Amino acid sequence: MDSKVYKVIEIVGTSSESWEAATRTAVETASKTLRDLRIAEVVKLDATIEDGKVASFRVRLSVSFKYEGPD
Amino acid sequence: MDSKVYKVIEIVGTSSESWEAATRTAVETASKTLRDLRIAEVVKLDATIEDGKVASFRVRLSVSFKYEGPD
Amino acid sequence: MDSKVYKVIEIVGTSSESWEAATRTAVETASKTLRDLRIAEVVKLDATIEDGKVASFRVRLSVSFKYEGPD
Amino acid sequence: MDSKVYKVIEIVGTSSESWEAATRTAVETASKTLRDLRIAEVVKLDATIEDGKVASFRVRLSVSFKYEGPD
Amino acid sequence: MDSKVYKVIEIVGTSSESWEAATRTAVETASKTLRDLRIAEVVKLDATIEDGKVASFRVRLSVSFKYEGPD
Amino acid sequence: MDSKVYKVIEIVGTSSESWEAATRTAVETASKTLRDLRIAEVVKLDATIEDGKVASFRVRLSVSFKYEGPD
Amino acid sequence: MDSKVYKVIEIVGTSSESWEAATRTAVETASKTLRDLRIAEVVKLDATIEDGKVASFRVRLSVSFKYEGPD
Amino acid sequence: MDSKVYKVIEIVGTSSESWEAATRTAVETASKTLRDLRIAEVVKLDATIEDGKVASFRVRLSVSFKYEGPD
Amino acid sequence: MDSKVYKVIEIVGTSSESWEAATRTAVETASKTLRDLRIAEVVKLDATIEDGKVASFRVRLSVSFKYEGPD
Amino acid sequence: MDSKVYKVIEIVGTSSESWEAATRTAVETASKTLRDLRIAEVVKLDATIEDGKVASFRVRLSVSFKYEGPD
Amino acid sequence: MDSKVYKVIEIVGTSSESWEAATRTAVETASKTLRDLRIAEVVKLDATIEDGKVASFRVRLSVSFKYEGPD
Amino acid sequence: MDSKVYKVIEIVGTSSESWEAATRTAVETASKTLRDLRIAEVVKLDATIEDGKVASFRVRLSVSFKYEGPD
Repeated sequence: MDSKVYKVIEIVGTSSESWEAATRTAVETASKTLRDLRIAEVVKLDATIEDGKVASFRVRLSVSFKYEGPD
Repeated sequence: MDSKVYKVIEIVGTSSESWEAATRTAVETASKTLRDLRIAEVVKLDATIEDGKVASFRVRLSVSFKYEGPD
Repeated sequence: MDSKVYKVIEIVGTSSESWEAATRTAVETASKTLRDLRIAEVVKLDATIEDGKVASFRVRLSVSFKYEGPD
Repeated sequence: MDSKVYKVIEIVGTSSESWEAATRTAVETASKTLRDLRIAEVVKLDATIEDGKVASFRVRLSVSFKYEGPD
Repeated sequence: MDSKVYKVIEIVGTSSESWEAATRTAVETASKTLRDLRIAEVVKLDATIEDGKVASFRVRLSVSFKYEGPD
Repeated sequence: MDSKVYKVIEIVGTSSESWEAATRTAVETASKTLRDLRIAEVVKLDATIEDGKVASFRVRLSVSFKYEGPD
Repeated sequence: MDSKVYKVIEIVGTSSESWEAATRTAVETASKTLRDLRIAEVVKLDATIEDGKVASFRVRLSVSFKYEGPD
Repeated sequence: MDSKVYKVIEIVGTSSESWEAATRTAVETASKTLRDLRIAEVVKLDATIEDGKVASFRVRLSVSFKYEGPD
Repeated sequence: MDSKVYKVIEIVGTSSESWEAATRTAVETASKTLRDLRIAEVVKLDATIEDGKVASFRVRLSVSFKYEGPD
Repeated sequence: MDSKVYKVIEIVGTSSESWEAATRTAVETASKTLRDLRIAEVVKLDATIEDGKVASFRVRLSVSFKYEGPD
Repeated sequence: MDSKVYKVIEIVGTSSESWEAATRTAVETASKTLRDLRIAEVVKLDATIEDGKVASFRVRLSVSFKYEGPD
Repeated sequence: MDSKVYKVIEIVGTSSESWEAATRTAVETASKTLRDLRIAEVVKLDATIEDGKVASFRVRLSVSFKYEGPD
């Protein structure tokens, strides 16, 4: 059978260092419970500010994985 | 550790009165099971029509919450 | 009470034949666990390529269903 | 026969009170001459200003109805 | 004289079989009353669902034709 | 009564000289049958090419006017 | 002389009651120092959430006014 | 070495039968001269009309391939 | 030191003749008080209509300049 | 055989006089080496500024032509 | 009183090292004169090139702050 | 002569370390064959995932260069 179904979700990672570190954290956390992640698309980048400095870099990612049931 | 991961979902609220009431309903329903919601972004507004009149106002919202596991 | 809350998710269907078949597969799979799906909006279309030929047609769909609890 | 054709038009409603009232007015006016309207999608919201205050709320809506002939 | 004026409208076609059939139906219906249609641009694709299966494929098209008077 | 309803349509003007001339032509043609036009928003600009040269400049405009009945 | 120059800025209004009240507040505050505001376009709507309920409705508006000098 | 560079181009396929056939034609033509194509993303769909009927379905695709030199 | 900060603002120019003249007017007015403008990006084009004719062409431009303090 | 394949490229034209002149220059330059150009779609307009005045008008155009081989 | 008004501006940061460094520089510069910045949203990323190498990374950010008067 | 013509292409860079490294690689590779590159605009960011970790960061860039002939 050649037809498969995937589900797409959005996750947000944060890091005080870089958007790449925020991406790694989000991907590794999601991978603990979701199988077969292959691409993470960046949907949005921003930064939180505290006391006039960047406190954290945030990245919103769209990832897809094999669909296996109820949400 | 300074890195956190969030999940983003979209919900739709409806109300026969206003988009604000639809938003309140959606946020309060989602808050029963999701912790630490802080911002609801409006993704789309529309209205259903019956017999030539507005029957309900609908708002699609994007909300994020702390990620804690399988989807 | 006239206010209802829905949840919106995105799913991806694939088919070696057409985007319509990919859509049917995704909708039928999602319907096994989600109640009261009524509209599937196309968010994105693409195709995978193998050996210089289209291997599968993929469709990303946005569908909504009645919200009934934790994610 | 299972195929139907619809036409989509855009209308703008105005109200000195709210975007919901503007929507109701636009939908009710359009319903006098168009049959079977079911959804009004919000395309744009704005407000006119006079003497430093909001004079009217305006909503641009996209509505569809059964296609029955020349434009 | 080298200047011409066109009008653009949006129509929606539906079909239980495919988006192509929905497009053909919409174009042929519009052509009965509008002259000189040349391009139909796809604005949106979706599908209606009944009983967990796709009931119809819908395509929203933008078409233009020679402008000849009141709307 | 402070609520009014408008209709929005799109028209396309063409000119062998400039997008401004194309806009003037479209606006003046539409004004023959539509009352109270006040703003024409540019939705799209393009040019047709013949024999390796620009043959005409085209502008797609969105204009609104007072709504007075069936489409 | 027929040419004028305007400046466009974005402001955000908040209200615990509605997006319309948030819009009125923002427009009236801006009007204290900016002359000749005429249209406020909605750029974004969202809501802040506290303790599982909507705490405030926020609207981001784009407004323009006569340009008179340094920023 | 873990860094690679790709080039992205857009191609348009046409078919009198379906957008899938148009996609297959475009992909197979491009594959004759470009190596290692893997995904074709749909950028735009439209149809040409002749004598009131759809004459051809057109699909604009974005494809990427290994970058190997001057354009 | 290799890091600089710029500010981006939007201005609107108007002209009874063309969008180019509207652009020149806006750029020259802004240059009186802002230093080192280098690019003006077109954000939006429209035209105002009076008595069924184009009264003025308007262009909304985004320009950036060296950031030197409070807004 | 009724299926053809086209390639789409983007070009940028510049002119000290107008966006139309910039468009003509770009189209005529591209036509020296590309056959059968028929439409140039405007993707972006901007202007370069020197000494507080517009130095050149730039237009980014998307054009398509018959696909005949390696890139 | 529960209603507040904010102003939104766009700033551009540059750095020869990374987009994160460019963001930090822009945020710290803006914080010298603007109070209570909390979020910086990325609007655009690009890079300048000199002699075939990246010379600087640039980030355009949207930030909001409490509105306190004339622009 | 004051009019020049440029061509715009899209390239994708990859790196196991950062989006900045991916950008540098893409720019340096493209500079080997294209003259006078000055700006690289980020069109899209994503990351590939292998075994639950980020394998590479990818950046899609739009770059322009002097147009000198057939594609």
